[in-house]
Amino acid sequence: MIGVGVIGYGYWGPNLVRNFVEAPGSQVLAVCDLRPERLALARSRYPAIETTTDYREVLADGRIDAIAIATPVSTHFDLAMQALRSGRHVLVEKPLTATSEQAARLIEEAAARRRVLMVDHTFVYTGAVRKIRELVAGHELGDIYYYDSVRVNLGLFQHDVSVIWDLAVHDISIMDYVLPSRPLAVSATGMSHVPGEPENIAYLTLFFDGRLIAHIHVNWLAPVKVRRTLIGGSRKMIVYDDLEPSEKVKVYDKGITVNKDDAESVYEMLIGYRTGDMWAPQLDMTEALRVEAAHFIRCVERGERPVSDGEAGLRVVRILEAATQSMAERGRLVEVTVG
Amino acid sequence: MIGVGVIGYGYWGPNLVRNFVEAPGSQVLAVCDLRPERLALARSRYPAIETTTDYREVLADGRIDAIAIATPVSTHFDLAMQALRSGRHVLVEKPLTATSEQAARLIEEAAARRRVLMVDHTFVYTGAVRKIRELVAGHELGDIYYYDSVRVNLGLFQHDVSVIWDLAVHDISIMDYVLPSRPLAVSATGMSHVPGEPENIAYLTLFFDGRLIAHIHVNWLAPVKVRRTLIGGSRKMIVYDDLEPSEKVKVYDKGITVNKDDAESVYEMLIGYRTGDMWAPQLDMTEALRVEAAHFIRCVERGERPVSDGEAGLRVVRILEAATQSMAERGRLVEVTVG
Amino acid sequence: MIGVGVIGYGYWGPNLVRNFVEAPGSQVLAVCDLRPERLALARSRYPAIETTTDYREVLADGRIDAIAIATPVSTHFDLAMQALRSGRHVLVEKPLTATSEQAARLIEEAAARRRVLMVDHTFVYTGAVRKIRELVAGHELGDIYYYDSVRVNLGLFQHDVSVIWDLAVHDISIMDYVLPSRPLAVSATGMSHVPGEPENIAYLTLFFDGRLIAHIHVNWLAPVKVRRTLIGGSRKMIVYDDLEPSEKVKVYDKGITVNKDDAESVYEMLIGYRTGDMWAPQLDMTEALRVEAAHFIRCVERGERPVSDGEAGLRVVRILEAATQSMAERGRLVEVTVG
Amino acid sequence: MIGVGVIGYGYWGPNLVRNFVEAPGSQVLAVCDLRPERLALARSRYPAIETTTDYREVLADGRIDAIAIATPVSTHFDLAMQALRSGRHVLVEKPLTATSEQAARLIEEAAARRRVLMVDHTFVYTGAVRKIRELVAGHELGDIYYYDSVRVNLGLFQHDVSVIWDLAVHDISIMDYVLPSRPLAVSATGMSHVPGEPENIAYLTLFFDGRLIAHIHVNWLAPVKVRRTLIGGSRKMIVYDDLEPSEKVKVYDKGITVNKDDAESVYEMLIGYRTGDMWAPQLDMTEALRVEAAHFIRCVERGERPVSDGEAGLRVVRILEAATQSMAERGRLVEVTVG
Repeated sequence: MIGVGVIGYGYWGPNLVRNFVEAPGSQVLAVCDLRPERLALARSRYPAIETTTDYREVLADGRIDAIAIATPVSTHFDLAMQALRSGRHVLVEKPLTATSEQAARLIEEAAARRRVLMVDHTFVYTGAVRKIRELVAGHELGDIYYYDSVRVNLGLFQHDVSVIWDLAVHDISIMDYVLPSRPLAVSATGMSHVPGEPENIAYLTLFFDGRLIAHIHVNWLAPVKVRRTLIGGSRKMIVYDDLEPSEKVKVYDKGITVNKDDAESVYEMLIGYRTGDMWAPQLDMTEALRVEAAHFIRCVERGERPVSDGEAGLRVVRILEAATQSMAERGRLVEVTVG
Repeated sequence: MIGVGVIGYGYWGPNLVRNFVEAPGSQVLAVCDLRPERLALARSRYPAIETTTDYREVLADGRIDAIAIATPVSTHFDLAMQALRSGRHVLVEKPLTATSEQAARLIEEAAARRRVLMVDHTFVYTGAVRKIRELVAGHELGDIYYYDSVRVNLGLFQHDVSVIWDLAVHDISIMDYVLPSRPLAVSATGMSHVPGEPENIAYLTLFFDGRLIAHIHVNWLAPVKVRRTLIGGSRKMIVYDDLEPSEKVKVYDKGITVNKDDAESVYEMLIGYRTGDMWAPQLDMTEALRVEAAHFIRCVERGERPVSDGEAGLRVVRILEAATQSMAERGRLVEVTVG
Repeated sequence: MIGVGVIGYGYWGPNLVRNFVEAPGSQVLAVCDLRPERLALARSRYPAIETTTDYREVLADGRIDAIAIATPVSTHFDLAMQALRSGRHVLVEKPLTATSEQAARLIEEAAARRRVLMVDHTFVYTGAVRKIRELVAGHELGDIYYYDSVRVNLGLFQHDVSVIWDLAVHDISIMDYVLPSRPLAVSATGMSHVPGEPENIAYLTLFFDGRLIAHIHVNWLAPVKVRRTLIGGSRKMIVYDDLEPSEKVKVYDKGITVNKDDAESVYEMLIGYRTGDMWAPQLDMTEALRVEAAHFIRCVERGERPVSDGEAGLRVVRILEAATQSMAERGRLVEVTVG
Repeated sequence: MIGVGVIGYGYWGPNLVRNFVEAPGSQVLAVCDLRPERLALARSRYPAIETTTDYREVLADGRIDAIAIATPVSTHFDLAMQALRSGRHVLVEKPLTATSEQAARLIEEAAARRRVLMVDHTFVYTGAVRKIRELVAGHELGDIYYYDSVRVNLGLFQHDVSVIWDLAVHDISIMDYVLPSRPLAVSATGMSHVPGEPENIAYLTLFFDGRLIAHIHVNWLAPVKVRRTLIGGSRKMIVYDDLEPSEKVKVYDKGITVNKDDAESVYEMLIGYRTGDMWAPQLDMTEALRVEAAHFIRCVERGERPVSDGEAGLRVVRILEAATQSMAERGRLVEVTVG
């Protein structure tokens, strides 16, 4: 039985606690938050769990094997580093850290101490995204032409990071999981509509080797909620709408065929259009965090490397950094550092 | 009764012919197309209309007062210039010309000859877009924060122009009509997925004076058809979905309120969220081209300046040029020339 | 080349004219309507077609081989009978006649004179309905459990027939085409909301042999347009939404499994739930009336029996009669006469 | 602080427990269920709550003031009667009882003992249904013409009651709450597709005094989930879609106008069509059961009569009984008993 401590009981922390409480193989022993009213809420739900406003009490608790961190991004590095140094396995809410340099240092520390370092890229544990990865890897779509995602709603404005670090991080981590190659450069634009605050709307174009292009639209100030991704391939295309109660992933047997042989000039080049069936595969509807919690426990128990390991967290942070820099320079192409 | 000649009877020409046939005040006398089978189709529908493969016969027909041009973009300038020089009023399919220099010369010619020069920015004649303009102009939305449009489908690939000139031109002309200010610079990205062909997917960010930002996503290779625009304002927000059979324009009484006075630091700044009613105003559902044809006839009869005049056409072409240049340089910010 | 005359140029007549004009193998020679302004409209569109307010002129026109009738229901029988007696092939808008006795007499007359009698059950010529018939006939759905259709909108109130004869006739004709058996009895309810006028809302339940049940909801006074049919089977289920621009027919691999063997009592009977993939087959999107016009011409040319022949028209009218009687008696079960 | 005991911890019981745990003014002291594994689940979530498989232990617990019952329908009467006789206030899951005679006896007992008897008609505590009641009562819709509801999905088949008692009960209780008058007679049809089991699909037409008509379609064996109600009025019409994440209630300024004065005969009677704005009022999105739990506690504390009192429960059961009888006789009109 893995003893778990959770630091941060704001928006996401309660979901972590609930899933580690219900997961076979783990028990939640302590919850930490700076706000006493959040701790009171935790106690009302789980009278047996200890609560504290001082994270050092969690680190000092010898029964705890693993620590889950769900605090503001700026605190991820310090908390995770202390947890690793105290010999604990660590699960960190996305994004892993505020800088790629911090992420690299966590990876080193975890490796040196042989501890599990996992980042909470929740979507890669959904049935929908796992199915998409399976379809892409199985060449069901053919060559991937584009990945286009819209993730907008009237959302909680954050004060310390732009909407890229809050919302686009989801899309970047999904792409990191499902696409066959990795972005080399990014052009990003955005705007803040509240003076003095970070950008609340942003657009990212990511360039890959070859003809693959990706785009992400994120917005905290939209009148409606949209979670929709289009993935175009040479053989088939996908619409992934996370708000659909069922049929979240639709596969369209649609596309073009190009016939250059018959053409004497480019103006005669024949582009044909294929329109076939649509198919919505059945998806595993298990809550993603339930799958993820079980995966984390298993990795801790067996010393295995998680799907969303520190390296995945680092790759995502590098893209966030490049996008942030490009956005500050109104779309200037910025290369993504490769480790 | 205005005599009308139509050059080009491909995809759009039949709509022009049908509307000028049915409009009170005009009659269609001649149709020109290079393809005999298209002319045969025109004759089967309208036995009384003369048809020809030679546009000079249209120019030579003394009964014709006005010429509507629905041919490939590259031919717009020559045909429109000859028509103006022959003393005809001219309606040109969007985009007005292939270059801004051509557009400027048409404007000059029309002014010198006191002829109507109108560009077929169809959407500005729809009930939906006219209602949006009315709401924006009446300060119903407050300050405009962003304009975001998606216009994608599995569409006819064009060989001579990129998807920007084919699809984004609609959004740019709508913005030109409804927004209170005009874009100063553009950052665009895109990709061609057919070697040797122009870009079939593109993303444009337009920067304005102040905090207004606009974005357009166009794609000829999408599995589903989307025609959706989000307009964010400080007071209200709009979702304009052109594929909705009714309620195309929805006005959301939603947004944020910022209260800086109470805050000692930025971290305490209060951002409040408003969520009120949604309202879908009744729209005039008259076919846009019907409204537009009547407007053109009226302008010809009275010597008035059309809503979508040559200047509007020129402004749109200047943005298309800047976007094309930016796209070639993978997002580099390019300023939009101002006349 | 089959010469066609069309009687009735109101709502539906123009569609008939357009399709017989464009169909290879037929030409429209005359159009008749009592209203001169409708004839003026026909002439403006088709200057070569003769127009008249007297249907007897159409009957007297020796060039005419076939007559299409698109007039109020109460006139169908007289016009169709005169056309048959004059030796013409006849296509009658749905429903075939106002009574089953009239339908039977038309069938006799057509048989005696060896003329084609066809009823315009438009939907059975759509790609969607043809695909559904194919799936049902191929036992793709297993045993059919139910057929449930909703067909409502804010529609044109008719003065002479209830909404059953105007809208439910579509569903009844589709069922007649796709279901493996025919209704034996009907229970119908409805209401008129305009004093003195026929019912504008109605609900029909149709009973078949065995466990198949069908239901139709029709309404002229609905705030939104709905055209949605659910078909439940023991193996799969269909959602047919005619308003979807694409994917009109969705096939769900869903259902229940019943295992009685393991159960000692009914309370232990195991009902299992299956949820599998969804699949939307590609459909022929040709306009139904185009397919239907070609089919009518072919039947006339070759002396073949149409899919929607007089017998189909008679079966549908018998159900309409039974439903009307049941509705007048607030749901009393009325048996459907079998020929 | 009201002490609450909950009998039944299957599908609905956990929701009752959670809401009475979180409601200020109540605490849950005991949970009863026949299945030990359900009680184990309750204890893992709420270690402080006592659990038992014997409901008499709950009745014997002197700290308990009120008992919530979420067991199969057939047991409602016995459990509720014993709870009332032991002096407890009682909240019973819908439907109140299996027969109207049972409901009447519970009402008597509660009155005699001055205890609160409330039935869990959950939907009348939703923001959507409360808004609809407000619009109807405020004559916003004018005269109500019809109420039409569809409530279908692939649902849990029940062995002891038909789908009418499981799903239609929701619609009947909503109608009881929002409509200005009560049904006088019902015609119902339905079918069982599992031999020996109750009907899994049913259609109910309810007749009222005057021109109001209501219809309910319920189905446990549908491929998709639908929760949609149309309410037609002489002035406006409502679409209430409970599956919409927001804008659940849409009010359409649509309808007909009848002008008989100008008409010489019924055939000339003018029916005009109005199509105006659509409006979606902001709704209170509080969880219904949270509102309901607070309402129950308040009624207990102050001795007030709940909105969904025993009389409401009785009225609903009387309609369920009439519908069941009508369904057994394939649509025969059955009058609803009035108390």
